[in-house]
Amino acid sequence: MSNRVVRNGESCALLIFVKIASEKHLQAEVYRSRVQDWLYGVRTNAPQRDMETNLDREPVTEAERLRLIYLLMTKSSHEGGAGITPKSGEWKNVESIFALHDQKFNKAWVAQLTSKYFLGENDFKEIRDRFGEKIAFYFSFLQSYFLFLTFPAIFGFCCWVLLGKYSPAYAIVNGLWCIIFTEYWKKQETDLAVQWGVRGVSKIQRHRAAFKYDREVKDPVTGEQIKVFSPVKRLARQLLQVPFAIAASLALGSLIAGCFAIEIFISEVYSGPFKSYLAFLPTVILTIFMPTLTTMLTGFATKLTELENYQSTDAHEAAMVQKIFVLNFISSYLPIFLTAFVYVPFAQLIVPHLHIFQLIVRPLAENDKQMTSPKVGFQINPDRLKKQVIYFTVTAQIVNLAMEVIVPYVTRKVFKKVKEVTADRAARRGGGLGPTADDHPEEADFLERVRNQADLCAYDVTTDFREMVVQFGYLSLFSVIWPLTGVSFLINNWIELRGDALKIAMETQRPVPWRADSIGPWLGSLSFLSWLGSLTSSALVYLFCRENAPAGTPGDITGWGLLLTILFSEHIYLAIQFGVQKALAKIDSPGLQKERADRYVVKKQYLAEIRGQEEARAMASGEVTRGEAISKSTIEEAARESTLHGHGTPEKRFWERQQGKAETIIIGKGYISKAMSSDKKETKKEL
Amino acid sequence: MSNRVVRNGESCALLIFVKIASEKHLQAEVYRSRVQDWLYGVRTNAPQRDMETNLDREPVTEAERLRLIYLLMTKSSHEGGAGITPKSGEWKNVESIFALHDQKFNKAWVAQLTSKYFLGENDFKEIRDRFGEKIAFYFSFLQSYFLFLTFPAIFGFCCWVLLGKYSPAYAIVNGLWCIIFTEYWKKQETDLAVQWGVRGVSKIQRHRAAFKYDREVKDPVTGEQIKVFSPVKRLARQLLQVPFAIAASLALGSLIAGCFAIEIFISEVYSGPFKSYLAFLPTVILTIFMPTLTTMLTGFATKLTELENYQSTDAHEAAMVQKIFVLNFISSYLPIFLTAFVYVPFAQLIVPHLHIFQLIVRPLAENDKQMTSPKVGFQINPDRLKKQVIYFTVTAQIVNLAMEVIVPYVTRKVFKKVKEVTADRAARRGGGLGPTADDHPEEADFLERVRNQADLCAYDVTTDFREMVVQFGYLSLFSVIWPLTGVSFLINNWIELRGDALKIAMETQRPVPWRADSIGPWLGSLSFLSWLGSLTSSALVYLFCRENAPAGTPGDITGWGLLLTILFSEHIYLAIQFGVQKALAKIDSPGLQKERADRYVVKKQYLAEIRGQEEARAMASGEVTRGEAISKSTIEEAARESTLHGHGTPEKRFWERQQGKAETIIIGKGYISKAMSSDKKETKKEL
Repeated sequence: MSNRVVRNGESCALLIFVKIASEKHLQAEVYRSRVQDWLYGVRTNAPQRDMETNLDREPVTEAERLRLIYLLMTKSSHEGGAGITPKSGEWKNVESIFALHDQKFNKAWVAQLTSKYFLGENDFKEIRDRFGEKIAFYFSFLQSYFLFLTFPAIFGFCCWVLLGKYSPAYAIVNGLWCIIFTEYWKKQETDLAVQWGVRGVSKIQRHRAAFKYDREVKDPVTGEQIKVFSPVKRLARQLLQVPFAIAASLALGSLIAGCFAIEIFISEVYSGPFKSYLAFLPTVILTIFMPTLTTMLTGFATKLTELENYQSTDAHEAAMVQKIFVLNFISSYLPIFLTAFVYVPFAQLIVPHLHIFQLIVRPLAENDKQMTSPKVGFQINPDRLKKQVIYFTVTAQIVNLAMEVIVPYVTRKVFKKVKEVTADRAARRGGGLGPTADDHPEEADFLERVRNQADLCAYDVTTDFREMVVQFGYLSLFSVIWPLTGVSFLINNWIELRGDALKIAMETQRPVPWRADSIGPWLGSLSFLSWLGSLTSSALVYLFCRENAPAGTPGDITGWGLLLTILFSEHIYLAIQFGVQKALAKIDSPGLQKERADRYVVKKQYLAEIRGQEEARAMASGEVTRGEAISKSTIEEAARESTLHGHGTPEKRFWERQQGKAETIIIGKGYISKAMSSDKKETKKEL
Repeated sequence: MSNRVVRNGESCALLIFVKIASEKHLQAEVYRSRVQDWLYGVRTNAPQRDMETNLDREPVTEAERLRLIYLLMTKSSHEGGAGITPKSGEWKNVESIFALHDQKFNKAWVAQLTSKYFLGENDFKEIRDRFGEKIAFYFSFLQSYFLFLTFPAIFGFCCWVLLGKYSPAYAIVNGLWCIIFTEYWKKQETDLAVQWGVRGVSKIQRHRAAFKYDREVKDPVTGEQIKVFSPVKRLARQLLQVPFAIAASLALGSLIAGCFAIEIFISEVYSGPFKSYLAFLPTVILTIFMPTLTTMLTGFATKLTELENYQSTDAHEAAMVQKIFVLNFISSYLPIFLTAFVYVPFAQLIVPHLHIFQLIVRPLAENDKQMTSPKVGFQINPDRLKKQVIYFTVTAQIVNLAMEVIVPYVTRKVFKKVKEVTADRAARRGGGLGPTADDHPEEADFLERVRNQADLCAYDVTTDFREMVVQFGYLSLFSVIWPLTGVSFLINNWIELRGDALKIAMETQRPVPWRADSIGPWLGSLSFLSWLGSLTSSALVYLFCRENAPAGTPGDITGWGLLLTILFSEHIYLAIQFGVQKALAKIDSPGLQKERADRYVVKKQYLAEIRGQEEARAMASGEVTRGEAISKSTIEEAARESTLHGHGTPEKRFWERQQGKAETIIIGKGYISKAMSSDKKETKKEL
């Protein structure tokens, strides 16, 4: 029986099937990985002396097995792996290494998820055991977010019915909700990491193959030679992020602002022919230039991250995520920012300057009048802001969901059909027989499935995280404009969770079950958005809530009023955040408690081993043990000893002037009765 | 030889001398305390099996000995102590329990400190070994602060010479310095705690005797019954701090603001007779009412803290410190705040309203004109702000130092003289013979020293901390007004450190050498003041830097300009703080590194014990061990096994269609050459 088999793949690729040569070796690898986890402080409990006991007590999960096999294939040879690095170096012809889907499990899993309203602890454990902690964290986060969303959905609906938009009450409650959700998740995340036994795993993550070291030093912890890259050099390179962020903001910002200005010009100034067609012009410009620009900037971000030369894949990914977040932030929120804080307050000032866009419409306009705004009576479009928010929070979400699940499915089906037709035609022409020609009939179905999976993309959990974080941003930053935002997100996310499960099971290759001990840099993004929400919400409320006439050039709005509102709102936000953090810190996390208890037990066992059971118990509880009670005999012995050695120093004589407890008491009583004439009675005791 | 002796004390008090009955018992106690530290995770290294080895390797320090003896006397009897609680319960006649000063060491120590410019690591270790970690932390903090002060002193001097006051450059650099100092100390503090083996010691601190529990629960970590007080109830009581802070602010604030208003009225409006005497009126009011009010509020804070019912003395002290900080904050900084942000910008508006104070001066004034401000031409006093800052940063510091060291010394000398004279007179009259009458001539000197020490106050390190933190506040909040602040503090603190040492050695009873793992709640105060400095400094610069005419009603100052300046300054501050935190987090602390290394070594030893030396090394380093290399024989065995069991399932048949490495390679090559007609060559590898 072989442990490798080769078959034809599609597009002239070769499928090489590999399986582990011996279960024993895999077990040894699992045991070793667990011992290492314990050595680096990820596991609390020391591994059992005996490998078999260890594996019996804690069976190998699917995720553990696949992760270790993947690592065995990709780790460098001096780390004990085969050193196969797909798509780079001498292995550049290796397209990818992936495990095959467990069809039966996947079907049952998706069916189970879609039949449930909420996922429980066991569901997450199952995801963890199958797809690894990183993906389990995503699902757990999504579920927590979904459950938390019920509150802004209900409260938002009530506000929408009762208070209308721009309600200060909604803004305050929403800000509070953002704080509580973010802080809750911070705790929950730690707890899950402990529960799943991966706390601190980010510290011992796998090395990046592309890491370049500039010197070798002795690891201060393990005492071994390790390769390092100067953190000062890296810091210097990281500072390049600042010009990058500025350049990206300027590039994306001017594109969006430009399109925005054209849109306003055409929709609200221009009144010539083809107006309804020209209205699409900004969209067309955005559709053409935005992807190009984003791709360019993403490429630049990738280069920058590579230049920063991180040692571990985790640090590399986190640095990349941070850069991408900047791009996402601008493209997702800038349009609304422009409408709310530039268009509405300053429209009257800006619109007259838009005549530069006359250039665009000059060939079409019949006269100049069509291209200039009426000098008086120009009115800003009051619904623009709300419409924009609805677009981003409803339409865009639905489009996104469709793009994620339905479009790839349809595309795949169509491509498959096309391929079949082409292959058919080729076969009829008597050309190449296609990859299926050599298939054994018994294997045909299986190989078909494998070829399909080889065609799929790899699953990237960061895109899903990004989607959710950007969504959270709309809620925290702009939902005061349209309080139904929460309702829309609640519905969307119920489907999103199932859709993502479907995507993993059907639309992507089986992901490598990586470990993680948190949602990583996204937590920072959540806090940032939540904080920024305290600024934007208060500003929006101040700017818009008082105008009864909706098409308002805001009347009694002053610069210092706005700034004071923002300043107050932000500091109240920070104070409440501080309070919530303190209060949550008081509540002990069950996971951390368990961890401490485990540690304590281990130590107590050790103590019992070295000092005996009874003494260990007493020492731990702080009781007096028999051995320590001051017995009369020891005192007498000390006294006898002193008598034997004679009355030496003045110190000795001092202690000997009163012999024994009884005499001391009598002398003391004598002093007291002598002093009875005076009123004050203060006893001083000294050692 | 007795282990307790009684002698007459002063003021009808009794001096009871106690010493430990047997060195052996003390040693057992030390060992037990070390084992407990290890059990609760304070010590990294497991204690040696043998008590003697442990004590040999790590000798008992003076601080450890005194702390444990003090605890043995004060701990409750079920914790193994004698349960003596000075001044409360059945022990209310026990005035205090203290160790006697080591005169020889103290003299050498003070001489050593005063002869040195800087203290080194060994000096702190000595302080730690003698006076405990809590006091060592204070000295170490003071030294770090002193060293850091050299920068604002030099830079401030340069600014004072070159740029004058209210320089934006100084404000920025000063803010940056505050951030770096605070963040540096955070790291330094952790490092010291690890170095001194007390990290996490605040978690296992001694119980408060006054703690009242409302139920007993099983400790989730140790599994023992412990007494707890509902954290929700405590939180509810802690919320009382908010009304307390508001009430205290109002009470102290209105007192200070009232005196401030009277002062302005008299100095700048009133022009009648006795003006120079009346100018002292506010000072007199403050001197009378301020101490009363402060005492009242402190008493209230004490009650509140007791109500909050903390379990450990540390938590209790921290809660008290927070409340006292509020009081200190108001009384220290409010006067300057009033001048800078109320008097200067709004003087013209407020001064006319001050006529209510005419009531005070009416009896003195000769006519109404003397009591009203000139309608036009009223000018604010431009130097008031600077003078005030100089008063607080120079005069008050000197007065403070004198009050701390010189006044108690003089008072004590005078009281002693008075007492001697009285005793002499009483003796001559043939009355009471005084406490010295019964003294053995050999002991007379010693008892005299003891009686003097019994008269001294206990040393409280929090007052010294408070002084330094309040001082830091002047630097961060107001030094932009007078850049020489740093110079004054640098000189003051050099003396302060030596003065505090002198105080501990001469002016107070020997302190109980408590342990601590940080400077506690003061760190929060430092961060708070540093942050607030970013607001006040920017506001001061904005308000004052542009007026060339110093007696300015600031002309081009706008509300939104001021707010925007503050907003910008604060956010730049927070961003830089975030950056500095990130950068400092990159630098590994040597203490934490050592701790991790210790942990690692312990684990590796354990691993070597259970799995053998060789394998432990290999497992830790991630190398391939002999036992794991895939040998040819295992594969052959697997193949033979499969042959024996026959060609069962389709899966088995799949794997068996290609036998061995060689065949697989040949077939693969065949597939490739077949596909050579096509261009694309992509290899897929699957497991």
